[in-house]
Amino acid sequence: MHLDLKCSLTGESYPVDQLQNLSAQGKPLLAEYDLDAIKETMTPQAVRARNIRSMWKFWELMPVDSPEEAVSLGEGCTPLLQANRVGPFEPFENLFVKDESFNPTGSFKARGMSAAVTRAKALGVKAIALPSAGNAAGAATYYAARAGLECHLFVPEDTPPANIVESKLGGANIYLVNGLISDCGRLCREACDQFGWFDLSTLKEPFRVEGKKTMGYELAFDLADHFGTETLQLPDVIFYPTGGGTGLIGIWKAFDEVEALGWIGSARPKMVAVQADGCSPIVKAYLEGADSAPLFPNAATCASGLRVPVAVGDFLMLDAIRKSSGTAISVSDQKLMQGTEEICRWQGISACPEGGAVWKAAEQLMSDGWLSPEETIVLFNTGTGLKYNHLFKSDDIPRIDHEGENWMKILEQQS
Amino acid sequence: MHLDLKCSLTGESYPVDQLQNLSAQGKPLLAEYDLDAIKETMTPQAVRARNIRSMWKFWELMPVDSPEEAVSLGEGCTPLLQANRVGPFEPFENLFVKDESFNPTGSFKARGMSAAVTRAKALGVKAIALPSAGNAAGAATYYAARAGLECHLFVPEDTPPANIVESKLGGANIYLVNGLISDCGRLCREACDQFGWFDLSTLKEPFRVEGKKTMGYELAFDLADHFGTETLQLPDVIFYPTGGGTGLIGIWKAFDEVEALGWIGSARPKMVAVQADGCSPIVKAYLEGADSAPLFPNAATCASGLRVPVAVGDFLMLDAIRKSSGTAISVSDQKLMQGTEEICRWQGISACPEGGAVWKAAEQLMSDGWLSPEETIVLFNTGTGLKYNHLFKSDDIPRIDHEGENWMKILEQQS
Ligand SMILES: Cc1ncc(COP(=O)(O)O)c(C=O)c1O
Ligand SMILES: Cc1ncc(COP(=O)(O)O)c(C=O)c1O
Repeated sequence: MHLDLKCSLTGESYPVDQLQNLSAQGKPLLAEYDLDAIKETMTPQAVRARNIRSMWKFWELMPVDSPEEAVSLGEGCTPLLQANRVGPFEPFENLFVKDESFNPTGSFKARGMSAAVTRAKALGVKAIALPSAGNAAGAATYYAARAGLECHLFVPEDTPPANIVESKLGGANIYLVNGLISDCGRLCREACDQFGWFDLSTLKEPFRVEGKKTMGYELAFDLADHFGTETLQLPDVIFYPTGGGTGLIGIWKAFDEVEALGWIGSARPKMVAVQADGCSPIVKAYLEGADSAPLFPNAATCASGLRVPVAVGDFLMLDAIRKSSGTAISVSDQKLMQGTEEICRWQGISACPEGGAVWKAAEQLMSDGWLSPEETIVLFNTGTGLKYNHLFKSDDIPRIDHEGENWMKILEQQS
Repeated sequence: MHLDLKCSLTGESYPVDQLQNLSAQGKPLLAEYDLDAIKETMTPQAVRARNIRSMWKFWELMPVDSPEEAVSLGEGCTPLLQANRVGPFEPFENLFVKDESFNPTGSFKARGMSAAVTRAKALGVKAIALPSAGNAAGAATYYAARAGLECHLFVPEDTPPANIVESKLGGANIYLVNGLISDCGRLCREACDQFGWFDLSTLKEPFRVEGKKTMGYELAFDLADHFGTETLQLPDVIFYPTGGGTGLIGIWKAFDEVEALGWIGSARPKMVAVQADGCSPIVKAYLEGADSAPLFPNAATCASGLRVPVAVGDFLMLDAIRKSSGTAISVSDQKLMQGTEEICRWQGISACPEGGAVWKAAEQLMSDGWLSPEETIVLFNTGTGLKYNHLFKSDDIPRIDHEGENWMKILEQQS
């Protein structure tokens, strides 16, 4: 394996050919590649010319020796869609949505699971386990199925029904826990100790972040394609819906890697972490100038992916936000649900509540003057809206009798 | 516009710069391109080199003068995944799934709607209407939203709840009809006459089939990429879940077009139409040697996309099946549900019931000796499994109390 694992706090090395979770200091391990060795061959032109329809087109920067080793279901290569300048989106001249609903199991969690399951399988793991807000559970289920691994999932009992059915259908063992994802994490750890399962908790395992970082690589290509330039481009601002923060940390890491490869310069997008008012540990720590974020009490939000009261990568997120001159902001559940509907109705993009949250955060920061209209802004729609039916009413749809006389009246009343 | 519209029965021309539905004979109109004019420039190499991440990379064979005209949400470019040789899939040496769940609104219907809404908008349409089994409704909603058009949907009252919520969230006007999709079709036509909406019923509008045919183009590239050949390749057999049959007809048409462009030779895959036992008009007509398929009485199946008792493109499907030396076969609801679960559990691919149906049909034809193990076989998984929660039970998931003492016992009992 052409990479090292380093403690994100101390820089100390850990062997990459063994299963790893957190460092001795209880901090995430991050992969470090020999970038000089691949610089010559891994050029943007070479990557563009590859006929690999997945994030594994970036395989030299991933935990494999060749793309064939990947446990892949076609994750990544998601579209970057420009927002039409209509309705509430009118002020934004260069607003884009990276639409992560185009992934196996309908969310960006697929990227992380593809990488983590690939590495776990290579190291001989037979059973994986993790706590999840829902989407990671679905993704883990299907990658475990693809790899022939057993899968154990600890999820809060109010996890969206769609996530539960999806995982059950894919053959995972699911346990509904009367608590938050942090409680699930504790049970998962104890169960892993007891049963010898491998703990795939995000950032407690080194490779989920490697999968998610590919969103950063893709952005650079997507914007170059959009603007028709040979050289890769980054946006001015990135809005990321932040739970455990794995995506934010990964994207930030990706930029450093491709700068070292000479693909981009030293300029960076401003990174904006978006959370829900009812669970905003990172926003609170950012505003207080703190370097870490303690457990947010009584965490509650309908955006299940944002209901993460404490995150082991807190210090890495806060560092990226500050280094990038970004910010952290929270929105109310009412606002984020409104935002979800606005993205669907005005843009035709099926948004998850977390996608709704980043949009409303961008709208807020535009009206505050923090954003300016011509900036190139990317919103991450981290999953499909299809999993959130339980949040929307649909019992008021008109019924018509096809054998009746007066059905056209019902249509007239509607319009 | 560089194309003609021809009646699929008589070959008579119809003006392409006006809105069109069926021909004077009540038959579908099909687009005919001046292939000689594009042959020089539209080579596989040229198409490969395009940085267009959607089916609009084939824009010369679509109803636009440039790709920028398209109403696009990133439809197409779906992955072709090879099936692992495990469990019931073991006998198949070269089995592939074209996974159409990677589309806006999670189904292949996005392709058709992208093309049809693009053309309708270009011709000044303000409101569209259609009958749908569910997935077309969702797709129409989001493309109409993207294009700023009004959208009216007539769906059977037992349409999957996920489709209804999705369409409502996207701002469409939905009407629940106490009948089948054929009843919805009649109401839709009358309402279009009354209110001046444009009827976007499949094959009664000429461009949905143009969108769906792109599945055929992509297959030829996907297989070449998989086998690492410069020249495009087609599979030996294609399994297609057949309702209105638009995809089957489109794919068949696509092969003729690219043969004329010199991309492929005259060999064709065997086309297999798969239906449900409870609604199998095409299978019945095929077995009886008929050229058309009358209304199938008392149509009933849980695979909502296959609940199409009568199809205006019947004669075109039967023709393609016979010319290709293919066949038509139906499977029971019990089998297709079992097939859905098998694809999820053994392959890690989230399958819709229609995807489950084609898999069980392939398994059947392999055990009958109609297929041989080494043949290259493509199954179309036409949509995501996420919309079919209502068909699966999930009330038997174990609950654990994170503050309790004995929770590990519950885990032990599970394993
Ligand atoms: C849809 C969605 N968005 C965002 C998140 C938060 O992701 P991260 O852990 O990378 O911060 C999640 C996590 O569950 C999610 O499911
Ligand atoms: C998932 C799915 N598969 C297959 C079909 C049938 O498609 P076609 O009309 O192209 O035969 C439908 C139609 O609703 C569908 O939704």
